[in-house]
Amino acid sequence: MRKVITVSREFGSGGREVGRTLAEALNIPYYDNEILTQIVERTNLAKDYVQRVLERDTYFPFPVRTARSFAPARDVMSEQYNAIFLEQQSVIFDMAKQSDCVIVGRCADYILQDLNPLRIFVYADMKHKIERCREREEGGEHLTEKELQNMISGITKKRSKYYHFYTGQEWGDKSHYDLCINMTNITTEDAVRAIISLVNKV
Amino acid sequence: MRKVITVSREFGSGGREVGRTLAEALNIPYYDNEILTQIVERTNLAKDYVQRVLERDTYFPFPVRTARSFAPARDVMSEQYNAIFLEQQSVIFDMAKQSDCVIVGRCADYILQDLNPLRIFVYADMKHKIERCREREEGGEHLTEKELQNMISGITKKRSKYYHFYTGQEWGDKSHYDLCINMTNITTEDAVRAIISLVNKV
Repeated sequence: MRKVITVSREFGSGGREVGRTLAEALNIPYYDNEILTQIVERTNLAKDYVQRVLERDTYFPFPVRTARSFAPARDVMSEQYNAIFLEQQSVIFDMAKQSDCVIVGRCADYILQDLNPLRIFVYADMKHKIERCREREEGGEHLTEKELQNMISGITKKRSKYYHFYTGQEWGDKSHYDLCINMTNITTEDAVRAIISLVNKV
Repeated sequence: MRKVITVSREFGSGGREVGRTLAEALNIPYYDNEILTQIVERTNLAKDYVQRVLERDTYFPFPVRTARSFAPARDVMSEQYNAIFLEQQSVIFDMAKQSDCVIVGRCADYILQDLNPLRIFVYADMKHKIERCREREEGGEHLTEKELQNMISGITKKRSKYYHFYTGQEWGDKSHYDLCINMTNITTEDAVRAIISLVNKV
């Protein structure tokens, strides 16, 4: 059975690892940073710039009005942000059409909805995410619990805002996913096995 | 591995079938109406009455004040509702301590939290639930789509209110479950296989 799997995840929940292990187990491509590389190649924009655009808050331009005109001035920044999102959309679509694959994040569940992907959402309790960040995230070991919590909440808020801006849907709302996995008490291997049981019919 | 599995479900999503099939596959007891029967046996209250209490809205008494007293009058109804809930709690606890089992609904995920059960939430799109009710629920075939939708929404609202009243938690909030399964595109067999992969370590 042909299957494209999208993995959305809360920062620190271990969703990226679930995605990577899943792709290895199914022997299909795993796309995460490759999407960024492709956008850079296609747009000729600097990698750092594209990354900043994709990782920062969505851009809400303040409507600049000139003289007595009621028409807003052309907003170059806003246009560029949208152009990068459209390019990302096109990259993801091309990847999904090429072969079965696992795509992590980047609104792929929404972008690929016409292809009927298996949509996974991976989450965890804050305590679990803090512990995981302390162990695995570069630099995380030097932060206090409060600092880690603020970092996780900040990234979650950004992802949520970004997702909502481009899809009009609430990020993490379970009605938009086929399976939501709480990693607090579940190992990566078990989560992968649960997902595979929905892909490979025995 | 010892495992108690609780299945909470949206009405019409097929969660009860998932629970029953899961219990059969694992060869462990499945508790649903058995809980009601046990409460009736223990309390000596009429089955219909207990069922009505457990299925209707939670009971919020209007504070009756007598004469000039500021102390509310004794509220027999409210006491009986709470007594039935406490009895249900005790029945569920006894069942879970006796052996591995699958318990459907009845706030079991909350009641058994100290036993660390595997907490499943089963849901589906409204369209899917309407179709399922039309096919499987007794009498459902005579209702219009709008009537079925109203019935499903009404029952969901009651369950949600009941759960919140007794647990203080939001019903269906994914942070309280280990796995949330959207049955819109998933068969009972696949859902059961996904759950089993979290129970039986290969």
